[in-house]
Amino acid sequence: MVHFNHFSLVEKTLAEKLDELNNLGFQFAGLNEKEILEEFLRRTPINETELQATSSSNLMDFLTSTEAMNWNAFWAIALQLQGFVANFEFEIDKANDFARSVNLPRIEGELSTDNLISALYLLLLSRGKGGMTLVEAWVSEGLLAVDNQYHFFNDKVLATFDTAAVKSEKVWVETPVDTQNRGQYDLVCVEIYRPLYEGGKVPSVMTASPYHVGMNDVASDKGLHKMETDLAEKTAGKISTYPRLPEDPAYAKTPADELVSEAEQSFTHGWTYSLNDYFLARGFASIYVAGVGTKDSDGFQSSGDYQQIYSMKAVIDWLNGRARAFTSRRRDKEIKADWANGKVAMTGQSYLGTMSYGVATTGVDGLEVILAQAGISSWYNYYREGGLVRSPGGFPGEDLDSLAELTYSRNMTGADYLAGNEKYQTQLAEMTKDLNRTTGDYNQFWEDRNYLPNVKNVKADVLILHGLQDFNVTTDQALNYWNALPAGAHKHAFLHRGSHLPIHNWQSIDFTEVINTYFTAKLLDRPLNLELPPVVLQENGKYESWTSVDAWGKDEKTELTLGDHHVKFENAYENADFIRYGQNFQTFKSELFEGKITENAVLLDLSLPFAVMINGAPILEIKLKINDSKGLISAQLLDFGNKKRLPDTPVPVESLALDRGRLFKQENLVEIPLRESQYQVISKGFLNLQNRENLTTICPVTAGEWMTVRMSLQPTIYSLEETDNLRLLIYSSDFEHTVRDNRDVTYEIDLSQSKLILPD
Amino acid sequence: MVHFNHFSLVEKTLAEKLDELNNLGFQFAGLNEKEILEEFLRRTPINETELQATSSSNLMDFLTSTEAMNWNAFWAIALQLQGFVANFEFEIDKANDFARSVNLPRIEGELSTDNLISALYLLLLSRGKGGMTLVEAWVSEGLLAVDNQYHFFNDKVLATFDTAAVKSEKVWVETPVDTQNRGQYDLVCVEIYRPLYEGGKVPSVMTASPYHVGMNDVASDKGLHKMETDLAEKTAGKISTYPRLPEDPAYAKTPADELVSEAEQSFTHGWTYSLNDYFLARGFASIYVAGVGTKDSDGFQSSGDYQQIYSMKAVIDWLNGRARAFTSRRRDKEIKADWANGKVAMTGQSYLGTMSYGVATTGVDGLEVILAQAGISSWYNYYREGGLVRSPGGFPGEDLDSLAELTYSRNMTGADYLAGNEKYQTQLAEMTKDLNRTTGDYNQFWEDRNYLPNVKNVKADVLILHGLQDFNVTTDQALNYWNALPAGAHKHAFLHRGSHLPIHNWQSIDFTEVINTYFTAKLLDRPLNLELPPVVLQENGKYESWTSVDAWGKDEKTELTLGDHHVKFENAYENADFIRYGQNFQTFKSELFEGKITENAVLLDLSLPFAVMINGAPILEIKLKINDSKGLISAQLLDFGNKKRLPDTPVPVESLALDRGRLFKQENLVEIPLRESQYQVISKGFLNLQNRENLTTICPVTAGEWMTVRMSLQPTIYSLEETDNLRLLIYSSDFEHTVRDNRDVTYEIDLSQSKLILPD
Repeated sequence: MVHFNHFSLVEKTLAEKLDELNNLGFQFAGLNEKEILEEFLRRTPINETELQATSSSNLMDFLTSTEAMNWNAFWAIALQLQGFVANFEFEIDKANDFARSVNLPRIEGELSTDNLISALYLLLLSRGKGGMTLVEAWVSEGLLAVDNQYHFFNDKVLATFDTAAVKSEKVWVETPVDTQNRGQYDLVCVEIYRPLYEGGKVPSVMTASPYHVGMNDVASDKGLHKMETDLAEKTAGKISTYPRLPEDPAYAKTPADELVSEAEQSFTHGWTYSLNDYFLARGFASIYVAGVGTKDSDGFQSSGDYQQIYSMKAVIDWLNGRARAFTSRRRDKEIKADWANGKVAMTGQSYLGTMSYGVATTGVDGLEVILAQAGISSWYNYYREGGLVRSPGGFPGEDLDSLAELTYSRNMTGADYLAGNEKYQTQLAEMTKDLNRTTGDYNQFWEDRNYLPNVKNVKADVLILHGLQDFNVTTDQALNYWNALPAGAHKHAFLHRGSHLPIHNWQSIDFTEVINTYFTAKLLDRPLNLELPPVVLQENGKYESWTSVDAWGKDEKTELTLGDHHVKFENAYENADFIRYGQNFQTFKSELFEGKITENAVLLDLSLPFAVMINGAPILEIKLKINDSKGLISAQLLDFGNKKRLPDTPVPVESLALDRGRLFKQENLVEIPLRESQYQVISKGFLNLQNRENLTTICPVTAGEWMTVRMSLQPTIYSLEETDNLRLLIYSSDFEHTVRDNRDVTYEIDLSQSKLILPD
Repeated sequence: MVHFNHFSLVEKTLAEKLDELNNLGFQFAGLNEKEILEEFLRRTPINETELQATSSSNLMDFLTSTEAMNWNAFWAIALQLQGFVANFEFEIDKANDFARSVNLPRIEGELSTDNLISALYLLLLSRGKGGMTLVEAWVSEGLLAVDNQYHFFNDKVLATFDTAAVKSEKVWVETPVDTQNRGQYDLVCVEIYRPLYEGGKVPSVMTASPYHVGMNDVASDKGLHKMETDLAEKTAGKISTYPRLPEDPAYAKTPADELVSEAEQSFTHGWTYSLNDYFLARGFASIYVAGVGTKDSDGFQSSGDYQQIYSMKAVIDWLNGRARAFTSRRRDKEIKADWANGKVAMTGQSYLGTMSYGVATTGVDGLEVILAQAGISSWYNYYREGGLVRSPGGFPGEDLDSLAELTYSRNMTGADYLAGNEKYQTQLAEMTKDLNRTTGDYNQFWEDRNYLPNVKNVKADVLILHGLQDFNVTTDQALNYWNALPAGAHKHAFLHRGSHLPIHNWQSIDFTEVINTYFTAKLLDRPLNLELPPVVLQENGKYESWTSVDAWGKDEKTELTLGDHHVKFENAYENADFIRYGQNFQTFKSELFEGKITENAVLLDLSLPFAVMINGAPILEIKLKINDSKGLISAQLLDFGNKKRLPDTPVPVESLALDRGRLFKQENLVEIPLRESQYQVISKGFLNLQNRENLTTICPVTAGEWMTVRMSLQPTIYSLEETDNLRLLIYSSDFEHTVRDNRDVTYEIDLSQSKLILPD
C-alpha cells in the first residue's frame, strides 16, 4: 500500500491560502461547503461528472442532494482526484480511513468552510498515486496558462514557462587556470538553456559534469589497473602534506575585440537532468559545464583538483559579471550574461555532486545553494582507504587516471586528438605516478583533491542527498563534509536506503517539492519559510517510510565484545577460488556473507543487548597479530537473518508518470519495494595494518607481535531490534575493493580483546 | 562489435540521388571529390573542424593538402559522423576495413565523383551507432526547417512537422454495435493528435488499444482463476461451431442537431507509442481508440469479438466519411474528419496487434496496411490449446473474463461504476460461463473470437512482427494468419529472437525505416519501390545478424526417433514439490529443463543426423497409454548445452539515443546481447488426450489402451548444427501453462513408436 511522506508543506494562514487559491482561479468568497467543492472542481481539468461521492451517488447528484457535505465524501472525491480507483483500490464508504492509512496530509476537526478550504489547499499540495502534487498535475494539464511568468503556490514555483520555446546557446567562459601551461587561460564550453522571460533576470540551476559531452569508455577500460598484486611493504615514517586552496587566481583583463549580445552557436541535443528540466519549466536557466579537458573546451583533465573546480566556478563568476565569456573559441567576441540574476544553485549526482561540493568551498558569491547528491568530498576516500588502494564498490581497478581517460573527452574528436593527445599523455603519466598505487598512501596529490580543509569557506546553503547503501561513493564522503561545515551553516541531509542513485522520482517522498521550495526562496529572493529538519531519513525495514532525525552521527556508544577466544584465518586462497572470486566479486561476496568461506575469514554472529539505532560510523577494534611484515584488514557488518528489508534499488511503479513541465521530459515513478531477504550489508571498512595509527603515520608491522587496530567503518543510520542478529566478517583481501593479495600469511585475532563499537 | 542490417534501402539512379540530395540542400554540380565532401560537411550540423581525415591530418588540413581523396579517408570521416570514436573505437588507417566489418552499406569500385555522391547518399541512409540514420539524426538537429511540409528522402518521409504545435482532440465515433442492448449504438471515444498541415489532407496511423484509457488491475487480479484443479473428463462427441462474421451492420442515419468543424474537447496526457509518435513528427495523424466498454466510451467489454472489432473499424469509416462522430457523448454536434485523407495504417503490439488483425478481416476500405506486432489471430489459441485450458506464458490463471475485468475501464470512474456495473456484471457472468474453463473445449464463444475464417477478406497489406521466443502470444497466432491470407496478398514478416516485445528501438535493424518506407508509399499514395523479402529473420546464435528467408513453414521433414524402449512417468508430484512449483513456475521450468524432475517427466537428449534449420511447427508423435480415462501431454523442445545464444530480452545500448522528431519522445537504443547459456527453449505444445484426433472431436481415453497422438508444437525458425543437442521433455501438468492436476496417473510411452518431426 502506498504511504506518502510530505516534507515540503509550508504553513500558511487562511488569508494567505485564500489569496493563493485565488491566484489559481478559485474564488470561494461567500460560498457554502458544497459550493466550495463545486467551484473547486469546476475550475480543474477533471471531468467532474465522472466522480463518485458516496456509495450510492455520483458527485453531481450528491451536490444537488440534501445530504450534508462531510469528510468522507471529501476524501472519496479527493482520492479519485489523486488517482486512486474508487470501489477497487478503496471503498467509498471508508475513504476517510483509507486516506489516513496512506498518510495523505489532512485537516483535523469539524468540516467547516474554513477547514474545507484548508483541506483543498492541502490537497493541491499533496502528492497523488502518480507522484505529482495535484496542483502540479493540474498545471501540467492546463490549470494555468503558459505565460512565461512566475506563479507561486505555497512558496513553490509552478510550471508556467514554455519549454518548447527555450533558448539554447553555447558560450565559452574564460577560466582563471592554464592547465597545460599554454600561457593562456583555458576556455570552457558552457551549454545554456534559458526560459523566455521578459519581466527581468532569471536565476540558474547549474550542473558541472565532466561527463556531459561524452565519455571515452575505450580509453578508460584500457586504463583500468590489475587488482591481482601483493600488498607492498611501506617505509615507516610520517607523511606531510599541506592543505592548499590555490589563491583564487585573477581573470584575464584584456578586452575582446567586440562585445555582442547574441550567442553565435546553439545546440540541439544534449544530456539534461530531471531536476534541471523541472526548474527550466519553472523559469530557471539550466546550465551545463563539463570543465577543463573536455570536448569543446581547453586544457588538461586534472580530475578533481582546484584547477577543475575553478574552471566550473568561472561560470558563476561570469553569471555575476566577474568573468568573461566569448561566443566562440576564437575569443574575438565577448558576451555577457545580461539575462542572469546571478543567483545559482548547483546540482548533480556523483562526480557532478562532487563538483558542487568543490565549488562551494571556494565561497564564490552567487552560489546560493548546492544540492550535492552522492558527491565526493575527498578523492582519496574514493580510490583509497586507510592507507590502501581501495576501489569504489562495483569498480575494481578504477583509479583517478582511468577516470581522467574517461573524461578527457577532447580525445573523442579526431582533430583534437591529433592536436592535443601527445601533451595530454605526458600529463597523464605524471598523474599516474603521483597518485601512487604502490603504497596507497595519502600524499600531496590527494591533498590537492581534498575539499574538506576548505569547507570552512562555504557560504552556500548545503543540501546533501546520499544513499546509505552507496558503497560506490561511500557515506563518509557526505558525513565528513557535513561535519566540516562551520557552525551555523544552513545544511540539510536526505538519507535514503538506495545505493548510488537519486530520489527525485520516488513515490514515497516529495523531494522535488522540497527542493522547489528551497531553490525558489534562495534564487528568486523570497523568504524561506519551510521548516525542514536537519536530517530526513528513510527508515530501514519499512515500506515508504521517512522520518526526521536531529543529527547524523551520535556520541553515545554501545560496545559489543566479539568473543572470548582466539581465531585465525588465512590470507591465501586455494587457486581455483582465487580465480573464481577474481572473475566475479559478487560470488565472493555471497559466499563470504553466507559463511561459505571458512578458512579465509572470521565470521562472528553477534547478539544485541537491546534495540539500537546505529547513527554514525561503527568502530571495529581488533587485537591481532600476523606472521608477516605487512597486511590488511577488511571488515563487513551485516544485518543477518531472513526478514523483510528494503533492497538498494527501486523498481518501476508507474511509467512516465512524472511530467516535468507540460509533456516535457516525462519520467518513470519508482520506489524501493519491501522484500524478504537473507541479509543486508550495514557497513564496511578497510585498513592497511601499517596505517593503524593514522593515515599519515606509517608504522612497521612486526611478525608475531600483537597489535591493536581501530577501524572506522562507513557511517550509516540503521535501526536494529534486540532480536536482530549482527554478522561481522573479518578477513584480508576483498575481491571487490582491495588488492587481491594471495601470499601465505596467517592472521590471528584475540576476540576477548576485540570489540565492535556502535554509535547510537 | 556493432553489426548493422539494412532492409530499408531503395535503389535509385544517380540522377534521382542528386535530385534528392539537392532537396536537402547539397549541391554537387561541377565539384571534384574533395569539394563534394566539403560541400556535404559544410551543410550539416557537424562541426567539421573536429574531424580527423587520416592518421596524420585533420579534415581541414586534408582538404587543402595534395593528398588525393580516397575511400579510407571517406570511411574515416563517415565513421566519425556515425558516432564512432576515431583512434579508440576504430583505427583511422583501417577505417575502410572497420566500416566493412560493422556492415555499413557501401559503394564498391573506384572512388569517382559519381561513386562518392552515391556513397554520401548511402551514408545518409545508414544507421549510426546511436540507431538513427544520418539523415534523420541531422534533420532532428536542424538540417531541414520545421515547415509542416512533407519532405522525402529515398522514399522515406522526414521529421519536418512541428510536434509542439500538434492539435489534440477528442471525438466520439458512433459504432454500428449496441453491446448492451440499449437500443442505441455505442459511442467510442477517439483521441486524435494531428500535425498542422495546410497543403491538403493527412493520413492516419491508428492504434486500437483496449488498454489505452486505463487498466483495472485490482478487478483483474481478483478475476484470476485457480490452476490447482483436476483435469475434467469430457463427454465424447463432435463439437460444431459456425464461423460468423456478423453482417457488417449499418450505421445510424439520424442526423445530429448540428454539424460543427471544431472539436469541443481536447486532452493533454495520454499513452502514445513510439512508432505513432515517429509518424506524427512526419505528418501523419496519430489516433487512439480503446473501443466498447472502456472509460469515456459506451458499452460492454466484449473482449475480442466482432462487436469490439467493429467498434474499432468505425473510426476508419469515420475517417472516410462513412460513419458519424460527435463532439461529446451528448450526440448533439456532429464533426467530420475533414482533415483526413482516409488512408489508415493500424499498428500496435499484443492486444493492439490483435485489433489490427481483426479489423483487417473486415476488409474495410481505407485500411491500407497493418503492422501487427505479436497479435492474436484466434483467442482460443491464447487461452486454450488442444482441448485444454492453457494459460499464456507468464500468466497462469488469466482468462478472457479476467482480461475483460482489466479492460472494462468504465468501472474506473466512480460515476460510471455506479451507473453501469450491475449490467456489466450480468454480462461478465455470461462470458465466464461461455468461455467454459471446465472442458477447455473450442465452442461458438471462441469461434466468435477467431479471426482466421475471415482472413480471406483482408485487403490491407499485412506486416507481421513476432518474437520467436514469445510464449505469451505464441507464434502460431502469426503463422496461422500468415497462412490464411489469400494468394497474392501483400505480406511480410519480421521474426526476431526476443519474447513479447517490439524491435523499433533495436540497434541491429532499420525496422522503423522499413515501416517508414512502407507507410509513406501506402498512405501518401506514392509508389512502393522497396524490395522487401517475404520474411526478415533474426538469426539465432549470432549477434545482430538478420537475414532474408523466402518462406515461413517448410514441407520437408526430418524425423528423429525417440528411442527403442518404454518409459514411464507419474502425473502426481510429491506434495512439497507440487506446492513449490505452484508458487514459482520458474523453479519448475529450470528443474524440468535441467533434468532434476525425474519421476514426473521423460527427458530425451536427441542427436541430429545433420545440421537443420527448423522452419515451421515441429510435430511430436507419441505412442502412449495411461491408467486412467483422462490425461494431458505437455512437451518442450530445447536446444541444450553450453553455447552462446541470444537471450529473449534486449539490454540497453544507449540511453535516449533515438529522437522520434526533434527532441520529441526520445527513446533508449537496445539490443539482444549474445551470451553463454545452458539451454534455450525452441518450442512447446500441450494436448488433452481426449482431443488427440482434433480440436472438435472428443474421444474417450481407455485406461491401459495404447493411443498414438500427434502434437503440433509452436512454429519457429531455428538453426541447429549437427553437433547440437536437442532435449525433449514430455510430461503432464505444466505449472506455467496448464491446470495443475495432481491425481495418481501413470503415463507409459513406447519410444520405438514415437518420433519428433522437424520441418526444414
